[in-house]
Amino acid sequence: MKKILKVVKTGGKLIDDEERLEKVLTAFAKIKGNKILVHGGGSMASRVSLNLGIKPQMTDGRRITTALDIEIVTMVYAGWINKKIVVKLQQLGCNAVGLSGADGNVIVSRKRPVGEIDYGFVGDIEKVNSGWIQTLLESGLTPVFSAITHGGDGTLLNTNSDTVAAEVAVAMSEKYDTRLMFCFEKKGVLTDVEKNTSVIPIMNWARYQRAKDEKTIHNGMLPKLQMGFDALRRNVSQVMIGDETILEKNPILFTQLKL
Amino acid sequence: MKKILKVVKTGGKLIDDEERLEKVLTAFAKIKGNKILVHGGGSMASRVSLNLGIKPQMTDGRRITTALDIEIVTMVYAGWINKKIVVKLQQLGCNAVGLSGADGNVIVSRKRPVGEIDYGFVGDIEKVNSGWIQTLLESGLTPVFSAITHGGDGTLLNTNSDTVAAEVAVAMSEKYDTRLMFCFEKKGVLTDVEKNTSVIPIMNWARYQRAKDEKTIHNGMLPKLQMGFDALRRNVSQVMIGDETILEKNPILFTQLKL
Repeated sequence: MKKILKVVKTGGKLIDDEERLEKVLTAFAKIKGNKILVHGGGSMASRVSLNLGIKPQMTDGRRITTALDIEIVTMVYAGWINKKIVVKLQQLGCNAVGLSGADGNVIVSRKRPVGEIDYGFVGDIEKVNSGWIQTLLESGLTPVFSAITHGGDGTLLNTNSDTVAAEVAVAMSEKYDTRLMFCFEKKGVLTDVEKNTSVIPIMNWARYQRAKDEKTIHNGMLPKLQMGFDALRRNVSQVMIGDETILEKNPILFTQLKL
Repeated sequence: MKKILKVVKTGGKLIDDEERLEKVLTAFAKIKGNKILVHGGGSMASRVSLNLGIKPQMTDGRRITTALDIEIVTMVYAGWINKKIVVKLQQLGCNAVGLSGADGNVIVSRKRPVGEIDYGFVGDIEKVNSGWIQTLLESGLTPVFSAITHGGDGTLLNTNSDTVAAEVAVAMSEKYDTRLMFCFEKKGVLTDVEKNTSVIPIMNWARYQRAKDEKTIHNGMLPKLQMGFDALRRNVSQVMIGDETILEKNPILFTQLKL
């Protein structure tokens, strides 16, 4: 029987809210056994950019990661936020090690090809070095990933943090019974985005398709769900969406994905 | 016989000068066998602070690391500079892994006690986790340290990068024949700071004492020399000071320390 590995993604408003981030990290530190944390960036990169007088570059309404932007997101995500999380986990007795995709060549991406839009320094994941992650886990370490990867050619690449979590979970599934947990500020997938009580406990593929057609789910949730279903198809054993309480032993309110 | 380990410190103007940094990293990547890189911050943190409108806090002419400053140096040193170096080394075929002292609990410091001056978030090194560094080296990885350590109590601490290099070298000396190389923009310890040809090839303890008394060595060099002699006394087998050419196989001009 494979050992259980929990891959937890945290992001959005949980990163910006000191108090809630502390709750997430406290619950995460208490998880027994193998675990990995992947964090998003929150709004700090935009605030730093704004303070430095850098205006976001947009093309057709899409945000472009310029050479200056990748410098700033690397500073903020792989620098401050990553180390702030690692130092807090260390304090909580969890032997965390902060990583970008460049460290130990652990996540290699391909710079998104220039089509109608040139997204700039944005990467789509090609390879996760699962062997080294396993070595770290077996040494009792807890990898903490920022969503900065690299192209192998000296470029750092901004990468979607949900994708980092999903790809890491998929890559680790060969060796572990892997559970992917998307942890954000809401209780789960909601039918009414204003009501935390409107959580859908089980989201299956058919219901997802229907909800997509009928537009009954918040737009921002759709890529996360698609990624979750893809992960289940690629041997991740469980995908959960909810707030920090899903990290506890017997969570009550959350959404579980089923194929 | 112990295996050789080279601990290279790079900093100062080499960090700010893209072209010279590339030379340093190219030479470093070519070093065969076990190696560790420790980097300083250069002037970028000050520039970022300045751009963000933050004024340096001084007490009695000494710089204080405020809560906001530690945020910025962590962003710049552990974020941008560390990852910029790691991604370049990866491109050069060197399997680098960027670390702050918090990662894997690898360097624990004590916040400098408040005496006449409160330096703020500044750390003096107490413990280097040499076992884990050895594990990384034995897995073929090359640790790249920024000079940010932690107190174990959730605080990140700004630490002198020469000290980080010296303390890492000392800690590793139990297991390795350790050579400490201070790599900066000059050819070595100079009798005339303007003339690279005035390199002192061998600096022994007596000459250092004399030079200190007679003020014939640049002030900024004195702590580096003291640290070097201390490292030799604490079982580091060799200490060299020079520019990037000391990383090559048979360097010509440099300063070697002798007790």
